[in-house]
This record gives sequence, structure tokens and C-alpha cells, in this order.
Amino acid sequence: MKIVNKRQLTDNGRTPALRGLRSDALKALEAALEAVDPKRAVLDKLHLSGDWIGVGSKHVHLNDAGKVIVVGGGKAGGPMAEGVEEALGDRVTAGSVNVLRGTESSFRLKRIRLNPASHPIPDEEGVRGVRDMIGLVSALGADDVVICLISGGGSALMPLPSEGVTLGDIQGITAGLLKAGATIGELNSVRKHLSAFKGGQLARACRPARVVSLILSDVVGDPIDTIASGPSAPDPTTFADAVNVLKKYGLFGHLSEGVRGHLAGGMEGSVAETPKADDPLFRDVHNVVVASNLAAAERAAAMAGDLGYNSLLLTTHLEGEARHAGVFLSGLARGVQVNGHPLKLPACLVLGGETTVAVKGDGVGGRNQELALSASMSVGGLTCVIAVLGTDGIDGPTDAAGALADGATTARALEKGLSPGAFLERNDSYSFFKALGDNILTGPTGTNVNDLTLILCGLNRDE
Amino acid sequence: MKIVNKRQLTDNGRTPALRGLRSDALKALEAALEAVDPKRAVLDKLHLSGDWIGVGSKHVHLNDAGKVIVVGGGKAGGPMAEGVEEALGDRVTAGSVNVLRGTESSFRLKRIRLNPASHPIPDEEGVRGVRDMIGLVSALGADDVVICLISGGGSALMPLPSEGVTLGDIQGITAGLLKAGATIGELNSVRKHLSAFKGGQLARACRPARVVSLILSDVVGDPIDTIASGPSAPDPTTFADAVNVLKKYGLFGHLSEGVRGHLAGGMEGSVAETPKADDPLFRDVHNVVVASNLAAAERAAAMAGDLGYNSLLLTTHLEGEARHAGVFLSGLARGVQVNGHPLKLPACLVLGGETTVAVKGDGVGGRNQELALSASMSVGGLTCVIAVLGTDGIDGPTDAAGALADGATTARALEKGLSPGAFLERNDSYSFFKALGDNILTGPTGTNVNDLTLILCGLNRDE
Repeated sequence: MKIVNKRQLTDNGRTPALRGLRSDALKALEAALEAVDPKRAVLDKLHLSGDWIGVGSKHVHLNDAGKVIVVGGGKAGGPMAEGVEEALGDRVTAGSVNVLRGTESSFRLKRIRLNPASHPIPDEEGVRGVRDMIGLVSALGADDVVICLISGGGSALMPLPSEGVTLGDIQGITAGLLKAGATIGELNSVRKHLSAFKGGQLARACRPARVVSLILSDVVGDPIDTIASGPSAPDPTTFADAVNVLKKYGLFGHLSEGVRGHLAGGMEGSVAETPKADDPLFRDVHNVVVASNLAAAERAAAMAGDLGYNSLLLTTHLEGEARHAGVFLSGLARGVQVNGHPLKLPACLVLGGETTVAVKGDGVGGRNQELALSASMSVGGLTCVIAVLGTDGIDGPTDAAGALADGATTARALEKGLSPGAFLERNDSYSFFKALGDNILTGPTGTNVNDLTLILCGLNRDE
Repeated sequence: MKIVNKRQLTDNGRTPALRGLRSDALKALEAALEAVDPKRAVLDKLHLSGDWIGVGSKHVHLNDAGKVIVVGGGKAGGPMAEGVEEALGDRVTAGSVNVLRGTESSFRLKRIRLNPASHPIPDEEGVRGVRDMIGLVSALGADDVVICLISGGGSALMPLPSEGVTLGDIQGITAGLLKAGATIGELNSVRKHLSAFKGGQLARACRPARVVSLILSDVVGDPIDTIASGPSAPDPTTFADAVNVLKKYGLFGHLSEGVRGHLAGGMEGSVAETPKADDPLFRDVHNVVVASNLAAAERAAAMAGDLGYNSLLLTTHLEGEARHAGVFLSGLARGVQVNGHPLKLPACLVLGGETTVAVKGDGVGGRNQELALSASMSVGGLTCVIAVLGTDGIDGPTDAAGALADGATTARALEKGLSPGAFLERNDSYSFFKALGDNILTGPTGTNVNDLTLILCGLNRDE
């Protein structure tokens, strides 16, 4: 969870004032990453004390005969499983967790099996892993406990098509809805009603065992019914919603026989609806967010405070098109420098969230680097740094996690004959920052709690 | 300076919680407008005390023989002139100020003449007014004082083409540069070098008299060389800059004989360059911003505090495309409601600045109403109000100053069969809020210090 090119990023021919801000920005980002390390997040929340499993402030009783079964999946499944085994030791009976293919052998586990699965397109191995989980939880009793590990990517990594539905059906419908511009809420209502696992159905399969879900949130605002399509959360959507969405986007007429039959069954009541918030089964389900964007942002703000900045966690709900967010954030930076609002210098504003990019050009980039590029174009000359980082370490289809922009970025680019506007125009933010040596490199961090943006503004000590 | 449809805006079938927030938002906006009333702003800064004219913390000596000449122009010229006569009484010798045609008879003035002029397209009457000013200041001595009143719209209201250049030349070039996408800085470098008044040239004409410029800022960040094209401010741009801009946008080849000759003279040195920051003449020039977006935003935040809100002046540098700013601001509102960042409830965030709209549709609207419409689409269900106001009372080509959006706006629109997205798509924000009764109406306020956005979020006392 380190920024691997720290020295290069702070040692790169800038003024001392900007170098200091850059170094501090990286320290605050590293502290934030540390705070949302999945294993550490699990260990912070989960502990065993006598006959009780403590999860944050909640406690679940476990008698000697009670089994502890671990299931779940997501990009952070491996380190979260390590955390559970470290916290509960031999009390773990068995476990099966789906993780990104290629990482299944990277963790030291005694009782929990890691199953390789595919992301973002789900595959049959993922389905096998989920069937394995269902097998483990199906025959449990009221004395038993299921610990469910949920993190980003879990929706694709934990596929289980409903009867009559194929993985291919789900892939086709998902692609069609995305292309037609469906919202994430609309998409989820359909996915949950073509699955036998999502939308609270895992929790139902665990009955009568108690369920503790440990959730590493990769969705802005931490909606537990949305993260990994909410396998242990009540589903606010219905079969009717799913059908309406498919009709709205003109896909209903093109469904396979199997999908059509399944949806018809759901509408008629011969196929069970996903469990709703008033379902008594949720009395024995505890959904606990163990790490989130908020935790990362709070840590970054605290670290900036320790480093001597007036710091403010502005929001964990940064959204919108990356290039426009960049304009907004550069305006904030300018305001801090010009009249000390909302903070006096030296100042650090922390924003969490996740922006989007409507790709139009043929360049290489990601939302975080594009935000940084756009912001850099409006902070020229300011003693400001804007650091943008995807906490998973992967920004778009690049090997960078984000980028560092500052008041000298535009001038340095123009010196090298690079036009920031032209790079932005073709969505080529990665190439832009690579040419300047200003990509932030972490490698995959194993966690994912959305993105962080830090705006640091300082006194110009060089003048 | 009142919101004239206050009762309608707060009495319109919403929940008590939203009604309370709406009412408080309007109170804070009215207080802000009051704080930047041009006459009051002049009276707050300008006073006579014995032989001294005080301007804020600066003082200018005035002996018995010294004349006081008042010149300038802008949309707030009338009330500012009233303020000067009230502050200095009989010490005002004479004055000539250009104002919007039709308002020249609306003010009670004894010694200052108001000249009608045209905006946004300058006209010959405007030129006559400026020549009148030049006549008044040209023969002054070192004992005399010129008080220059500058406010938004002053660039168009105070035209004085350089020798050989016509108003038509300037209009054509301005339109061409705007169409080609020139920045305001580029545009100003050209306008200042085709004028005998802008870019510090008024200050030069006043020599050896002392100059006190009272500036009502309508530009984000209050750059005095930009407001009304800076007639009393050093000009950072040169003839060479102006020529480069004209070449960059392909207009240089199409210039009239007169313009070409004037620019050539400037490049050769036979026509004087605009005065620069190191010109000794500026030792006797005091440029004082008497009211600005910051003053309005500070007052709004203070009023919200008085009304019981945790309040924060977030920035006076809100910029960017209105609809994207709306997305950003709705994210901030959601963050305040969800996790109390940056403020605990009840909360009021104040943002000043000026957004833009790239008009693509054929609807009727303005930047402030479009921002409110866009924001309303993402705050559905929240106990939040987003109030957006142009301080001049005029938002786009409409009779509204802005709009009130809240957590019920989308639901109310859908009930009436109105699709917020469709109205946004065709830039029809005025019609949208008119149908809901949610335009904010003030009439022209006589001031202009950009725009204000307030985000108020409260506890949902209705639940």
C-alpha cells in the first residue's frame, strides 16, 4: 500500500514550496490507503472474546457446537479472509470465497478456500465457487454463524444465474442496459432478479444461521443493497421493476426463452421474490461496513492536520464527469489561495467519491488522471497541488493509480511542447502525466473504497 | 433589493421542513443583496473628514481649491453616483457617468450628470459620454481628485475607440473573437488596445490629479484590470499580445485599414502603449473594491449562522458549466445529509462565482436556473434546498434572478407531467421553474457581484 514512485514525484525540479506540498500530499494518501487495508479493516472490527464474536459494537453468541462458515467474494476477498482467520483462529470451521483469478494462491489460509473467478465478465468458475458457498451454508442450524466478506467487484465475481437463465443471458442483458444508458439502480434491479444469490438471497440461503457481513464499500455513500449487488441486504426492487427496466430500454422483446420464463414466474409468484426489508430473516443478519471512502478520507484529513495543514473533509460524494469536477476543484483551489475560503493557508481539502469519464477520444487514461489534467489547466501559477488517487491502485486501463497536478504542471508541459488541452480532448491523461513523470504508481492495492482527491495549497515560501 | 415572490416560494404545498429551509434561504439571499447595494457600498467606504477624503483605510488630501470630479460608468453607475454625492456633498465639483439607457433619470443628483449608453453593444452616445469625462479630467491639477465609479457592464457602456478605429470595428472584432472561443483575457488584450480609455488610459488622462476608483466587482476573484476593462488599472497586456490574439483566431487578415494602422502604430511605438504596473502615474491611483461577491457571500453565511445553521463560505470561485456544477453541488448536499461533511445538520454552504451555459437547446433559461435544475435532479428525497441567484436580478434572457430547487422538486415536476431531464436537455430551465412556481423574482437589483448559491440541509422534522 505504498506509492512506489514517491521520490520521483517529489524530486522533480519544482520550487521548494510545490515540492513540500507534493510530498505532504503523498504522505496523506499513503496514510489513507493504510487505513482501508482490507485485512487491517477486518481485524479492527472483528474479534473473538470467549463465546462471543464481536463485530464493531455488536456481539453474536457462539456456543461450542456452533460452526463458523466464511463465504463471499470481491477484489479484497483474499486479505479479508486472512483477517478473519487471524481474528477467529480455529473457530473458523470452513470457508469458500471467490477472488480475482490469479490471486487465489497469494494468501496464507488454513480453512478458507479461495476460488478463482473472472471480472468484469463473470464465468463458470465463479458460478462453481458460489455453488460451493451455497453448499456450505445450506445445512446450517441456528447455533451456526456465517461470516460473509463483501467487497468491490463482488457482483461479477459471485455469479449464480437463476434457474433457466444462463451466464450468457446475463452478460448480454448487462451489456445492453449499459449501452442504453441505464442507471446503476436500474441495472441492479435486473441483475438481482436474474440471480439466485444477489439481492439478499445469500442471507436467505443461510437461514436459520446468523449472518455477519463484513463490507468493504466501493460505492459512494455505502448503500449496502448496491455493493456487490447486496447478497446479504434487503432488496428494495421487485420483479416488476426489473421487467419495467427491460421494457423501458427496449430489451424485453429480445430476451431468451429461459429469461422470459423466469421473469414470468417471478411476476406470477411461482418464483420467489428477493427478500425485502420487513422479512424476519434480516433480524439475524448484521451488515457492517468495515472500510469505506469515509474512513480513507478521514484519515487523509487527519494526516494533513498532523502535517500542519488546516484540513477539511469536504465531501465523500464527489461525482460527475471528471473534467468538469476538475474545473470545480481548481476553482476551490483558487479560492483558498485568493481569499482563504474555506480554509486559511496552508490548507488541505479532502474529497472522496468517484467521477466518470464519457470517453470520446482514443487516448489512454482514467477518471482520476483526467480529473487531475483538467484541474491542472486552471491552477497555473498557484502554490497548489491536486492529488487524485484510485484507492484500488488502478485508474482506467493503465498501470497508474492517479496523478499529481500542481501550479507548475501546465508550464512544464508547454516547455516540453505538450498541450494540456489536446491531451484532455483525446482522453489521454495517462500519456500526459507519464510524459511529465507525474503519474502516481502504487500497483494494485488490494482494497477499493473509491477515489480520493486532495487539494493542498501553501504559502509561496519561494517568493 | 427584495425577493418579490417570497410568499409564493415558501407557501407552496411542501413539507414544513422544506418550507423552513426555503424561507431561510430567501432570508440569507436578501441579506446578501442588501450588503452589496451599490449606494450603501459607496457610503460604507467613502467619507469626508475635514480636508481629507477617506476611502476605506486610505486618505486623500483635498485643499480648498481642489476640485472633485466624478467619472466612470457601469450598470451600478446611478446608485454609486448617489452614494458619492451623499458622502461628499458640495465638495463634488462636477461629474459625468455613463449608465444604461433608460435609467439616467432615475436618480437624484445635483452635480453629476448621467449619460445614457447602450449595453451590451456600445453606441455613439456612450462614446459622447466618455468624451465628456475626458473633457472633465483633462485639465486638472495635482490638487484635484478624480473619483471614478466602475461596475459591471462598464466595458460596453464606456466605449472610446482609438484614433482610426470605429465602434463598428470593435463590435465586429469582439463578435469574431467570442465566436472563435477566445478567453476573456485574450478578448480584453484586444479591446484595451483598440480603446483610448480602457487598460489604465483613463488614469493616464487624469494626470496629474489623484484618482480614487470605487469598484463594484462583477468578475470572479476581483481582478481590477479586468472589471470594465480596467480604465484605472495597470494593463498587463501589450499591443503584441493583441496582435497575437487576432492572428491566433484568424481575424488579423480581415481587419479594417484603420485598425491595422492603429495596431501597426502601437507595434512601432508611434501610438502609446497602455500604462503598465511600474508606471509612476499609478502612485496617485487608488483602486478600491467597494463590493464584491465575497462581501455578498460572507453576509449570506453570517445570516444563515444567525438563523441557526452551521454555515460555511465554501468558495467565491464557483466556475464551469452550470449543469455540471449542479451535479457537484447535489453531491455536496448528499454528503451533508449522509455523513455530516463538511458540516453537521442543519447546514448552510455558501458558494459564489459565475458558471456558464453552452446553449444547445431552444429553451428559455439562465445559468443560475440551469444549475438549480441540474442540482434538483440529484437531491430528490433529501431535506435540502439549493437556492441560486444572480445578484443583478437577471438570469439569462428571463425576468427571473434564479430559482429554488429542493428535495421535492423532481417529484412535483413528475406529478405535473414535466420531465426535468427534458427541460435540461433543451436549456429550458426558466420554463421548468415557472411551471413549478419556483423562479426567484427580484427585478433588476442595480448591483452585480456575480452569483450566489446556497445549499441548505436540515433535519427532517416531518418524519
